[in-house]
Amino acid sequence: MKEIRQIIGYIDSAAGEETFHSGNPSRKEPNGSLIYRATRAEVNLAVEKSVAAFAVYRKKSGAEKAAFLEAIAMEMENSGDELIQTCVSETALPKARIEGERARTMNQLKMFALLIKEGSWVDARIETAIPDRSPLPKPDLRFMNIAIGPVVVFGASNFPLAFSVAGGDTASALAAGCTVIVKAHPAHPATSAIVGKAIQLAARKTGMPDGVFSLLFDNGIETGVQLVGHPSVKAVGFTGSFKGGKALFDLAVRRAEPIPVYAEMGSSNPVFILPGAAKEKGKLIADAYAASVTMGVGQFCTNPGILFYQQEQTEFTGSLKEAFEKTTGGVMLAPYIFNAYNVGLQERLAVIGVEELSAGNIVSNGEENLARPVLLSATADVFRDNPNLGEEIFGPSGIVVTTGAKDDLLDLARNLSGQLTATVHGTTEELPGYRELFDILEQKAGRVIINNFPTGVEVNSAMVHGGPFPATTDSRTTSVGTAAIFRFVRPVSYQNMPEALLPPELKDDNPMAISRMVNGIRKQDHE
Amino acid sequence: MKEIRQIIGYIDSAAGEETFHSGNPSRKEPNGSLIYRATRAEVNLAVEKSVAAFAVYRKKSGAEKAAFLEAIAMEMENSGDELIQTCVSETALPKARIEGERARTMNQLKMFALLIKEGSWVDARIETAIPDRSPLPKPDLRFMNIAIGPVVVFGASNFPLAFSVAGGDTASALAAGCTVIVKAHPAHPATSAIVGKAIQLAARKTGMPDGVFSLLFDNGIETGVQLVGHPSVKAVGFTGSFKGGKALFDLAVRRAEPIPVYAEMGSSNPVFILPGAAKEKGKLIADAYAASVTMGVGQFCTNPGILFYQQEQTEFTGSLKEAFEKTTGGVMLAPYIFNAYNVGLQERLAVIGVEELSAGNIVSNGEENLARPVLLSATADVFRDNPNLGEEIFGPSGIVVTTGAKDDLLDLARNLSGQLTATVHGTTEELPGYRELFDILEQKAGRVIINNFPTGVEVNSAMVHGGPFPATTDSRTTSVGTAAIFRFVRPVSYQNMPEALLPPELKDDNPMAISRMVNGIRKQDHE
Repeated sequence: MKEIRQIIGYIDSAAGEETFHSGNPSRKEPNGSLIYRATRAEVNLAVEKSVAAFAVYRKKSGAEKAAFLEAIAMEMENSGDELIQTCVSETALPKARIEGERARTMNQLKMFALLIKEGSWVDARIETAIPDRSPLPKPDLRFMNIAIGPVVVFGASNFPLAFSVAGGDTASALAAGCTVIVKAHPAHPATSAIVGKAIQLAARKTGMPDGVFSLLFDNGIETGVQLVGHPSVKAVGFTGSFKGGKALFDLAVRRAEPIPVYAEMGSSNPVFILPGAAKEKGKLIADAYAASVTMGVGQFCTNPGILFYQQEQTEFTGSLKEAFEKTTGGVMLAPYIFNAYNVGLQERLAVIGVEELSAGNIVSNGEENLARPVLLSATADVFRDNPNLGEEIFGPSGIVVTTGAKDDLLDLARNLSGQLTATVHGTTEELPGYRELFDILEQKAGRVIINNFPTGVEVNSAMVHGGPFPATTDSRTTSVGTAAIFRFVRPVSYQNMPEALLPPELKDDNPMAISRMVNGIRKQDHE
Repeated sequence: MKEIRQIIGYIDSAAGEETFHSGNPSRKEPNGSLIYRATRAEVNLAVEKSVAAFAVYRKKSGAEKAAFLEAIAMEMENSGDELIQTCVSETALPKARIEGERARTMNQLKMFALLIKEGSWVDARIETAIPDRSPLPKPDLRFMNIAIGPVVVFGASNFPLAFSVAGGDTASALAAGCTVIVKAHPAHPATSAIVGKAIQLAARKTGMPDGVFSLLFDNGIETGVQLVGHPSVKAVGFTGSFKGGKALFDLAVRRAEPIPVYAEMGSSNPVFILPGAAKEKGKLIADAYAASVTMGVGQFCTNPGILFYQQEQTEFTGSLKEAFEKTTGGVMLAPYIFNAYNVGLQERLAVIGVEELSAGNIVSNGEENLARPVLLSATADVFRDNPNLGEEIFGPSGIVVTTGAKDDLLDLARNLSGQLTATVHGTTEELPGYRELFDILEQKAGRVIINNFPTGVEVNSAMVHGGPFPATTDSRTTSVGTAAIFRFVRPVSYQNMPEALLPPELKDDNPMAISRMVNGIRKQDHE
């Protein structure tokens, strides 16, 4: 049986006596690896190394950090089929999905590498001195973003690569110049270990300091609690449940020195179907909705869990019913996730007025944790009277809510809590009449989507994967796309600093040829 | 006697029965106005109006919001000598200082007006669709910053105009598109009322919605607590004591929906004098330091309260002593501030090893609350053994700490808590040898200053007035300069939004001609 140890900088460590096993969620017996739980001393050592490495790593140039990120991508590729097979076995996700997710994870790393090689992301601002200004001289002031310090990242269950050990949080923190300690998700420890070794190897090959990256294992909460409470940790990235994310936030703001927590805690991702669209292309929309809800066994943060449409669209109800009957479920990521899905469904079905509109299929070959897609329905009044119907169920399920006319729809939108996404389907003719709906939705969600579905989160400069509480603990940021780097920096201003001591980004002749604000005007070179 | 009422949007209100008086801190008897304390109903009404106004105000164009900000500046000017006299009487600050501060406050408003008229601050990012991309189409995504919601601002005692009712927090929040409720500082209510009326008039003249601005009075904590706890309030700006700022932060993060608190809580603003500088220009530095510590009776957030220098510089000790003997104190802003100053000094003098090195003068004409400048001294060992010596004393006092050689200086720097500023004086020859000191200081402070002093906070695009905790509750921001606007916004991304429904900042042909990122490349026009 494979043994999995902590990766603490350049050493591997198995100092503890407590262990746990990884398993394949489709089978009853743990078939995987033996994992050592991190000890308190190992956690402290990881943080100490992270602090020491930070002093060196934060001063690396954009090109040097980029080489490290690119090397991580390359080592992930080099981990070849072993990574794919291990990940498939630990998550029960299809091979093609995992292959796609590895490609996406590598692309994220390369995207941040490009961003920091170019260098303008530091938001350099220069105000030149006017020594003879009256009544007071104007000093020379130069502003840029610098790395905030050692960052703790919690791997997510549902994206074992893209939101895990070398995922978006790690990539953006490393790009910013922060050192990173990842707490692996206990549902895919062997996958995490392979990626952790890839990062360790990439760090060695590119000459990064010992401690730039560490990876710790725990199937309980102790390691996470100790990490978030450690005075040398300066920020936290998390993707997971509301309960988990909020608990970390509460810990972090109660520290002697509060630190930011970027917890992406999921969302119900409401979808509004306007009457024209339901009439004109109801069948297409119903098929696409059913596909979006059940994709990846419904285990996406952007799963569209609520769909609103006007109750007179009875034909659309039929289309939804039919579309959902054609869907197929699958094995969920872990037994506790499968259990929570079933409990959530039972709780909803116990609400008077909530009915099962349709259910999908399961094709069983004796697998465990096999979830069946279920589509629930309720009226707007039932939905209003039972606020818990607006909360996320993690899994291949949605609730369709039949509403009155436009005013009812607007009222329902106004009463939504914070969301990652909000979606509207409408015809070209009817959309302009719903401007008020968009005004409401852009205040409720990080991303407003027209005539698409929210699953499939594009990774680029214009993505916002975030949104108002309770979707996240910090609506001012995104955890996907280039803007994610700003979570791990703070601005500093240098006054009257001699040219020789200035960082290259702020030197007079702009040696990095980055875009800068000079005396309030944007400039690309040293004009 | 003048009566002062709440300004709640376009109405004035004095619904409460509780009142307090404003006074001139240099005299014993309250001589000023009678102020009504806000009632719970008045606080709620202000928030309700703020919510209603936000729906309208956040959609105003940059030009419309700029006209409002410029009108506020104009009405502040129109308030003429009445504002100056009232402010001088309530703060005991000199007329020239208040005149200068009004000019600065007006300039801040105009600076934000310029910023939002130009419009690029929204950080627009466009990623255009590639419908035939394989394996999945690329959607059209457009990203920009939007206003976060109603903001509560707490007026500061020490800048009755520039960090108060129409100060930097209010100006930046209004610029972002947020509505604002100010809780006036009880030490200058009549001043606050005049500025509040100026904003109310400016709002009317420029057609802003009722509730875009409100001003509430209270000499206790109830109004502030109620405002920060109100579910419709979305962010808080504060400048003041650690105790006050931290209490508001703790309230805000314990809400059902946590909200950001930007509390600037002061700092000791350490100054390091390198040996060459002490030798070469010790007398000049000592004079400038004494002037900076005692300026405005030492009532600045950036007051340089700690000065480190190598103990063999005995001549420099003499220069500091002499320079401080020439300083003159003055009346502090309020009796409680004067008392805290004296208590703070006595506590420090009670520490074994802390001595009074020098004291300035007071010229008394029978004024109350007249503070004498005091310069304390201690060795590095005493400073290390008594961490409270590193905390701010608000007033015209500093402590000089004699250190060993370079390593001792670096060790002291490493042990500093978060600061607004850190300053180094050195000769051109010796500065490059202290690169390690700068590496430490840029992680401790929002602004690193060479051969200047921290008082005199320039207001422009490159200023950082902020820093790591406990200087502020959010090191990722600044409360002075154009970047202060980012405290009150969050990003939103529009996916596949029809051109007609897009905000002008994100339309294809860039009608506002702002700087945007298009497919990762910075562009100024519609290329």
